Amino acid sequence: MSKLSEVELIDWLRGRVAQPSSVAVGIGDDTAVLRASDREWLATVDMLVEGVHFDLARCTPHQVGRKAMGVNLSDIAAMAGQPTHALVAIGIPPGRPESLATELLGGIDAMARSFDVAIVGGDTNGSPSGVVVSVTLLGHPTGRGPVLRSGARPGDVLFVTGRLGYSLAGRHFDFRPRVNEGQLLHARYDLHAMIDVSDGLAADVRHLAEESRCAVVVDERRIPFAEPVISDGRSPLHHALADGEDFELLFGVPPDQAADLEASQPLLGVSVTRVGEFLEPTAVHGTIPTSAPGGVSAGVESGLVFLRDANGTIRPLEARGFVHEW
Amino acid sequence: MSKLSEVELIDWLRGRVAQPSSVAVGIGDDTAVLRASDREWLATVDMLVEGVHFDLARCTPHQVGRKAMGVNLSDIAAMAGQPTHALVAIGIPPGRPESLATELLGGIDAMARSFDVAIVGGDTNGSPSGVVVSVTLLGHPTGRGPVLRSGARPGDVLFVTGRLGYSLAGRHFDFRPRVNEGQLLHARYDLHAMIDVSDGLAADVRHLAEESRCAVVVDERRIPFAEPVISDGRSPLHHALADGEDFELLFGVPPDQAADLEASQPLLGVSVTRVGEFLEPTAVHGTIPTSAPGGVSAGVESGLVFLRDANGTIRPLEARGFVHEW
Repeated sequence: MSKLSEVELIDWLRGRVAQPSSVAVGIGDDTAVLRASDREWLATVDMLVEGVHFDLARCTPHQVGRKAMGVNLSDIAAMAGQPTHALVAIGIPPGRPESLATELLGGIDAMARSFDVAIVGGDTNGSPSGVVVSVTLLGHPTGRGPVLRSGARPGDVLFVTGRLGYSLAGRHFDFRPRVNEGQLLHARYDLHAMIDVSDGLAADVRHLAEESRCAVVVDERRIPFAEPVISDGRSPLHHALADGEDFELLFGVPPDQAADLEASQPLLGVSVTRVGEFLEPTAVHGTIPTSAPGGVSAGVESGLVFLRDANGTIRPLEARGFVHEW
Repeated sequence: MSKLSEVELIDWLRGRVAQPSSVAVGIGDDTAVLRASDREWLATVDMLVEGVHFDLARCTPHQVGRKAMGVNLSDIAAMAGQPTHALVAIGIPPGRPESLATELLGGIDAMARSFDVAIVGGDTNGSPSGVVVSVTLLGHPTGRGPVLRSGARPGDVLFVTGRLGYSLAGRHFDFRPRVNEGQLLHARYDLHAMIDVSDGLAADVRHLAEESRCAVVVDERRIPFAEPVISDGRSPLHHALADGEDFELLFGVPPDQAADLEASQPLLGVSVTRVGEFLEPTAVHGTIPTSAPGGVSAGVESGLVFLRDANGTIRPLEARGFVHEW
């Protein structure tokens, strides 16, 4: 590690982080001690690895820190939950600038603060060959309980927040997790199933379809493409379907609420777009894809995802997005 | 990663892990959903990095997995807590044997099972240059609440479980975390402060002293040395003080309970040894160490740790153990 010792790093962070009343003991003992009025908790972890998820020649340590917390916030958002407490483990190679660790932790802390998340523990390590950041985020479901991937029913309408594609050209470092949006939607509509778009629209629709045991038809003409920011010979459609890391919310609502949601646009500055529908698995005629790049989840037989193109033709849609989450 | 895709790894683990009633949603959604009757939680994280904490030429992936869970169990043990749920993030370099990830996760799972811990979430990643494992462990305090580092008082007697030193020669991969022992001691005695010996006796006594704002005198003649298993010119005393990773419990009890604890030896197959005493910081005459290798925690002024040798001479004891935990 750098000259700033691990103990000094710990004290640096310990002095910075907020300590709400739910934190009986924060950083500095063998474990944190948390107290909550809520008996139900959400818990998720994500690891970012240098050379896989980021390249410090092309982004700052602060951005990496923000993203490491942000991807977890997005997971809590996908449950319509309220994030509360985080634990952070980092590995820093020897010989890197002293500022690397503090900028990284500063980015984690900045993103945490903007969602009132308290960092309650962590671990700093040397890491011979690359920076590693692992953030564990805890939270609570909001009033109507957690929104799972598995609750969509045939007839439900598929919606997505914001715009999709080209995130990897830059936005994936500067996205704002849809925590508030998830909660607002959950309070006003019956969200039957929800996921955040991390693997790409195609792969994440598949997750909803498999867990809900429904088929899904995505309407190509309705997909809210992001503005192209790079020209690489691939279409905006391909970017939207396959890129991933949009960190938008993808969710199903009952058909009798779809028109109101579409018309009222309840999210401040964030669009909500109807992009498809859930169907009985037997309702769609066409070739059923039995395998897909990235692998189809073993033991889940029916990943029935289809794309309806501008001509009305329906064809199977493969999970071309990469797969990296539990 | 290896040919076994991340999705397959996830499903492999998802199919293995126990799912107690406290786990409403386990691996497979955006987050886990946990339900508990207890409102107070413990939370800790530790990361192990190849080339720093382990060398796969000298240990198995299964051992690394066991240890990654074990060090966290030891932290919960040091709070006299009951571990319950874990989240696991791993990074595996491309080109490694396919068995590496499953052996690693198998070791994590085996150690988790032996303490009834449910693995409820995780993340698998590529990692270009080395294996990384980060385990977050949740749990609950037991009946009398968590035992902090900060509760020792002048007059308290310092005890340690088991034997110290030479752990790095092998035992650090095969230790059994003192979870049951911590709970039993906490139920029968007034544990004022406790820590697990991860940085070495000298450094971990210092943590107790600093957090409790007491001086501590360790009696050299009383330290329960482990049998020497290597000959490197350093004394058993040095190994006990500086090696670390013994994962024994180090704790303070009030003086009126010390004789009973020492005589009754309540732990099955594990010794409990009186090794020192807590004192008023002003009670010990001698040179006060103002800095020590590894750094003295900034903002904590009084790390007053002393060693009484066989002649009764008291001298300052520096924190020669390495420092790596929050």
